[in-house]
Amino acid sequence: MIPVTDPRIEAYMLELTPESDPAILEMEKKARETGVPIVSRPVGRFLSLMTYLKQPNLVVELGSGFGYSAYWFARAMRDRGKIVLTDYSERYMEYARRVFDEAGLSCRAEFRVGDALQIGREYGTIDLLFIDLDKYLYPEAIRVMLPNLAKNAVVIADNALWRGAVVEGGEGKKDAAAIREFNEFMCGHEDFFATIVPVGDGVLLASKISP
Amino acid sequence: MIPVTDPRIEAYMLELTPESDPAILEMEKKARETGVPIVSRPVGRFLSLMTYLKQPNLVVELGSGFGYSAYWFARAMRDRGKIVLTDYSERYMEYARRVFDEAGLSCRAEFRVGDALQIGREYGTIDLLFIDLDKYLYPEAIRVMLPNLAKNAVVIADNALWRGAVVEGGEGKKDAAAIREFNEFMCGHEDFFATIVPVGDGVLLASKISP
Repeated sequence: MIPVTDPRIEAYMLELTPESDPAILEMEKKARETGVPIVSRPVGRFLSLMTYLKQPNLVVELGSGFGYSAYWFARAMRDRGKIVLTDYSERYMEYARRVFDEAGLSCRAEFRVGDALQIGREYGTIDLLFIDLDKYLYPEAIRVMLPNLAKNAVVIADNALWRGAVVEGGEGKKDAAAIREFNEFMCGHEDFFATIVPVGDGVLLASKISP
Repeated sequence: MIPVTDPRIEAYMLELTPESDPAILEMEKKARETGVPIVSRPVGRFLSLMTYLKQPNLVVELGSGFGYSAYWFARAMRDRGKIVLTDYSERYMEYARRVFDEAGLSCRAEFRVGDALQIGREYGTIDLLFIDLDKYLYPEAIRVMLPNLAKNAVVIADNALWRGAVVEGGEGKKDAAAIREFNEFMCGHEDFFATIVPVGDGVLLASKISP
């Protein structure tokens, strides 16, 4: 395992931006208690920033868990934009709906239970696609969703460095290989300009640059 | 000194995105030969991505050196947008102009010799402000430029982690203190939503969120 960011640096980053939003704090507590994986808080802030910059009308999230990353997108949307959450778990989607309701953000969200790729392809002209489903599905996910991306769309994928396993192999070899394949696809594809942002567990960030 | 990104991770990132643009390669060679500091290549790619997402009409760069970071902005601009380069060195600005000319990007750039803060405040409604001048000037730079930022403007500052010195003190104490002050100002200011992106030497990324 390779720490993507030095722990002292990450501690400084967290100190700089204390969080008081009760929804964020509650979801982080739930993640700690249940062991459900969520993006790190610096990744959450990064997702908000990408939302502020891009101002998307439609965000589709493949693999929402109980809605933590979706909340960072929705909170940064202000007066326009919608995010589609997807997860197999009805319980997670109900939880997310409750949290979004209490935060006054439900008008910015659709909560969909089922297969993320099936649901995702129902939506056309996606401005921002966020990929965070099972890692072995990453290469298939981008191939399936490619025709549904809007002009200048942004693609963001979590776990692009997989705790360093993309570099050193080891744990979760099958997953690491799939993520490597996905990273190479995105960085080598002429329709995209892509980079990996070494925040959290690594975030692949790509902009569709084809006309 | 704290490495912001693990060297194995950074090597993987560079491998994924080989660079063949002769202008980039020439400027990187010049930096190695002269010791003039430039942003790292992953930071350069990140700046291009921010340009693709934001699609700024006006980028103002405080402290351009010989134009390496400006080139990453300009190359991602396509058919609109302008970047204002600033540096004390007439020689650097002439070099940048020559590189931009050869790449067909001069139409996207203004090359200004002199005091970055004096020049910067000539421009109003700045969509993207990039700060990379002497580190002790960071807090003054943002205070001076604040009134000149457009609605939803983006502020990006290089060296926000100063090789870890913001955390551990040590080398360049005065500079580290100034950067810390700047980071705290940006992260605490109600007009901004800010985060530090731990790429290269650390990049502060902020979006103006005041109405």
